[in-house]
Amino acid sequence: MTLQIGFLVFPQVQQLDLTGPHEVLASVPGTATHLIWKTREPVVSSNGLALTPTTTYDECPPLDVICIPGGSGVTPLLQDAETIAFVQKQAAGARYITSVCTGSLLLGAAGLLRGRRATTHWAFHSLLEPLGAIPTQGRVVRDGNLMTGGGVTAGIDFGLTLAAELAGLQEAYAIQLELEYAPAPPFNAGDPETAPREVLELMKQRSAPGFAARSRAIEEIARARDAR
Amino acid sequence: MTLQIGFLVFPQVQQLDLTGPHEVLASVPGTATHLIWKTREPVVSSNGLALTPTTTYDECPPLDVICIPGGSGVTPLLQDAETIAFVQKQAAGARYITSVCTGSLLLGAAGLLRGRRATTHWAFHSLLEPLGAIPTQGRVVRDGNLMTGGGVTAGIDFGLTLAAELAGLQEAYAIQLELEYAPAPPFNAGDPETAPREVLELMKQRSAPGFAARSRAIEEIARARDAR
Repeated sequence: MTLQIGFLVFPQVQQLDLTGPHEVLASVPGTATHLIWKTREPVVSSNGLALTPTTTYDECPPLDVICIPGGSGVTPLLQDAETIAFVQKQAAGARYITSVCTGSLLLGAAGLLRGRRATTHWAFHSLLEPLGAIPTQGRVVRDGNLMTGGGVTAGIDFGLTLAAELAGLQEAYAIQLELEYAPAPPFNAGDPETAPREVLELMKQRSAPGFAARSRAIEEIARARDAR
Repeated sequence: MTLQIGFLVFPQVQQLDLTGPHEVLASVPGTATHLIWKTREPVVSSNGLALTPTTTYDECPPLDVICIPGGSGVTPLLQDAETIAFVQKQAAGARYITSVCTGSLLLGAAGLLRGRRATTHWAFHSLLEPLGAIPTQGRVVRDGNLMTGGGVTAGIDFGLTLAAELAGLQEAYAIQLELEYAPAPPFNAGDPETAPREVLELMKQRSAPGFAARSRAIEEIARARDAR
């Protein structure tokens, strides 16, 4: 039985959110990986890398693992009925519902975080609560069959954690060794606690427009839900 | 002045060797990134991800940074005259000559490692010496304008190290924070020293055919050089 692992892909995706866990999970023996979008036309990532979908919402097989990466392209999808319906349908049958970075906000917009512990990119963590999640700090946060990763590079930690669940510790160790994942960041600025204060302020400024856009979308989603 | 950063891309590339540093370096302000191959047709990575070249050997602009990722697809390129000539031509004018993982073997085949400190994926480290390099352990090894990264995920450490050279420490910190690069591997099996012995043996077995193929190619390159 081949394990079906599907990653949503979309214009302005943060490609490393997807390519990190893809390299890990596609290394698990007996898996098939899919890149899913509305069409099979290539999409361009937030940093200009073209990624080609392998299947569409209509043709995607039932997934064992659904993974939603983040990036600025998540914002319009939060209120995109076609995407929300696809995520809800696949999540209903999936063994694992997962995300990296701001991909968890899309899970939230699909109603899949309500009452569950979840994480997201540090700059967007305050948007988890209005989606009904229990905001939780961590590179990888597990709540039942929901597994959410933190910002961008947390996708590799997430991928290895999930690989161990899918194929056992031995295989996860083998993948970690193959990918030589013994990270040694040259600097110590990777989270808000360790980054210099002025760098944190700079990044908050840079992410402010994206934060505002997502915050507005999430407010509208909450209003629509309350009106029903 | 836009900084031109070019990544070689080819069939059976290990995509994370490329996508990790691409996400980092494309985040440096004032850069243009290129994916370079013989044609603009999409190529498929060792784990099945399609990547689309943005330019060709003939049309690529002069590069400030040339970066060669690794993967099993490196092997045929070690003796591919067209690729060797392209790498030599670009390297002659580049500010930085760089690689990730087994990409350094291609730099070696192009004669660019002779007498210089360099690294590669742990399983292929013994192939550096026959290429004339000074084999050096490290996630990122610098020797003048040559900067080589270790296996796969070392590409992120390499990318941040180079980002600091190109744009200064402050900008490198900002990129590290944006990518939330405060890695927390769930296991401690990422290098030959820490991986369980049986996992190391398994991975040596799995990499043996690739090692033998590259070793043969490098022997032939050395013989051809000695014959001249």
